[in-house]
Amino acid sequence: MNYLEKLRKASRDRESLLCVGLDPEPKRIAGGLGAAVEVCLRLVDATTDVACCYKPYAAFWEQYGPRGWEGLARVRESVPPEIPVLLDGKRADVPNTMAAYAAAAFEAMSFDAATIHAYHGDDSILVYANYADRGVYVVCHTSNPGRASLQHQLTGRQPLYLTVAGLAQRCNANGNIGVVIGATTPEAVAKVRAAFPRLPFLMPGIGRQGGDVDAAVGAAYNGDPASCLVGVAGAIMYSDDPRPQQLHGATGSVGSRAQQPIARGNLSDLFR
Amino acid sequence: MNYLEKLRKASRDRESLLCVGLDPEPKRIAGGLGAAVEVCLRLVDATTDVACCYKPYAAFWEQYGPRGWEGLARVRESVPPEIPVLLDGKRADVPNTMAAYAAAAFEAMSFDAATIHAYHGDDSILVYANYADRGVYVVCHTSNPGRASLQHQLTGRQPLYLTVAGLAQRCNANGNIGVVIGATTPEAVAKVRAAFPRLPFLMPGIGRQGGDVDAAVGAAYNGDPASCLVGVAGAIMYSDDPRPQQLHGATGSVGSRAQQPIARGNLSDLFR
Repeated sequence: MNYLEKLRKASRDRESLLCVGLDPEPKRIAGGLGAAVEVCLRLVDATTDVACCYKPYAAFWEQYGPRGWEGLARVRESVPPEIPVLLDGKRADVPNTMAAYAAAAFEAMSFDAATIHAYHGDDSILVYANYADRGVYVVCHTSNPGRASLQHQLTGRQPLYLTVAGLAQRCNANGNIGVVIGATTPEAVAKVRAAFPRLPFLMPGIGRQGGDVDAAVGAAYNGDPASCLVGVAGAIMYSDDPRPQQLHGATGSVGSRAQQPIARGNLSDLFR
Repeated sequence: MNYLEKLRKASRDRESLLCVGLDPEPKRIAGGLGAAVEVCLRLVDATTDVACCYKPYAAFWEQYGPRGWEGLARVRESVPPEIPVLLDGKRADVPNTMAAYAAAAFEAMSFDAATIHAYHGDDSILVYANYADRGVYVVCHTSNPGRASLQHQLTGRQPLYLTVAGLAQRCNANGNIGVVIGATTPEAVAKVRAAFPRLPFLMPGIGRQGGDVDAAVGAAYNGDPASCLVGVAGAIMYSDDPRPQQLHGATGSVGSRAQQPIARGNLSDLFR
């Protein structure tokens, strides 16, 4: 079963579009890397019935220093095999170096999918996409104000982010490429969806980044459970109380806030 | 002393623009991570008199799996303090996540400089550039054929790579930003230099990627020893014989091939 098939099955089984972030922050979790791993292991354990994907940011593990990737590996291994795990590393380099990044993500660490940047162009994107059973999300439009610096630059008649989505589509012979679009800008989500009706979207930004779940999902969802994977991190991880010892309980209660609208709540109609 | 001052001093002291790559490849070095570390430790030891910077690609260490970063840390620590070490990771994300990457590179691992992508825009670039004593190189124009997909797209009247260089320049209030430009395209090097007379360049691509040292350096060098840092990896590391046990000797002899023209050889005039 390839990545998108695995994602669809996990999504249908849970009536959920929820991608749970595994992003420990040293300032919010006392106890260093060991505590970060424990918090994430408990978070996985508490959310396997609602998460159809898990997504660690590589950055949040690398900030723990040389052993950070070992912690990431432990957490990655804890996810049940029926739920895909996506490495959010946003890598990009020339093809020779990109092959080493792909080997790290897909071989050494056995991730099901990964995020990349498109700036190096088609030959670099294809290094990842040639792993036909894995998923690749190309960064398209982001949630931070600085995005306007380049992503909104006109390339011909369209902004760069639409040109990037078009490049992703052109590299998609294996049908395993999607795009990353921040959930804070439903109008950009709608534009990319109008231009590329079938491309899978990964939409981070729900919760702390202030995304409007309903508007973003409404603009992205095309009937395919893999068309709209909704990333939530801090809103679940730190929930009602930032102290890690509260995490398990908080994760349970978050169902009424951040999680429910994208899990069994408002979106259950989508699965009927 | 900040990064660029340290680079200038190392460059003047050695009459060299040489940045030595620390990029082990499992297919060329038998013995796994331990052997990779050993080869790189010997490479550093054999080149401190000609290298004015060392540059590991994060990718080449990550492909060794969860313990790869520990190997990278050992090699990083082996470099004498007077020679800067540059992490070539080409990271890019929203500012919150970018802060974690910067903490990994500059705090946890104590690198003197790092490469990033500009796609997220000014607020993301500034997260790195706000480390005023460190160096930041923004990826501008690369050596692979696929670069044309995006880097040559016209944004207004100029190709995207010049717009990216302009964005780097605008973020350069601390005077610690440069750009990455592949050495295989001296004409692109010349265009960026004409538009930005003082921006420091990091130019990978000498050796295996086929860059023309003289043309690229001629187009980039502006009289500042930090204006043109020339990256060489495989051509030194695997030199005359790919077997690691030959490395020490090969590194010595490589002075007559890849290293000399950018070290004490052809370029010594630049330092008079």
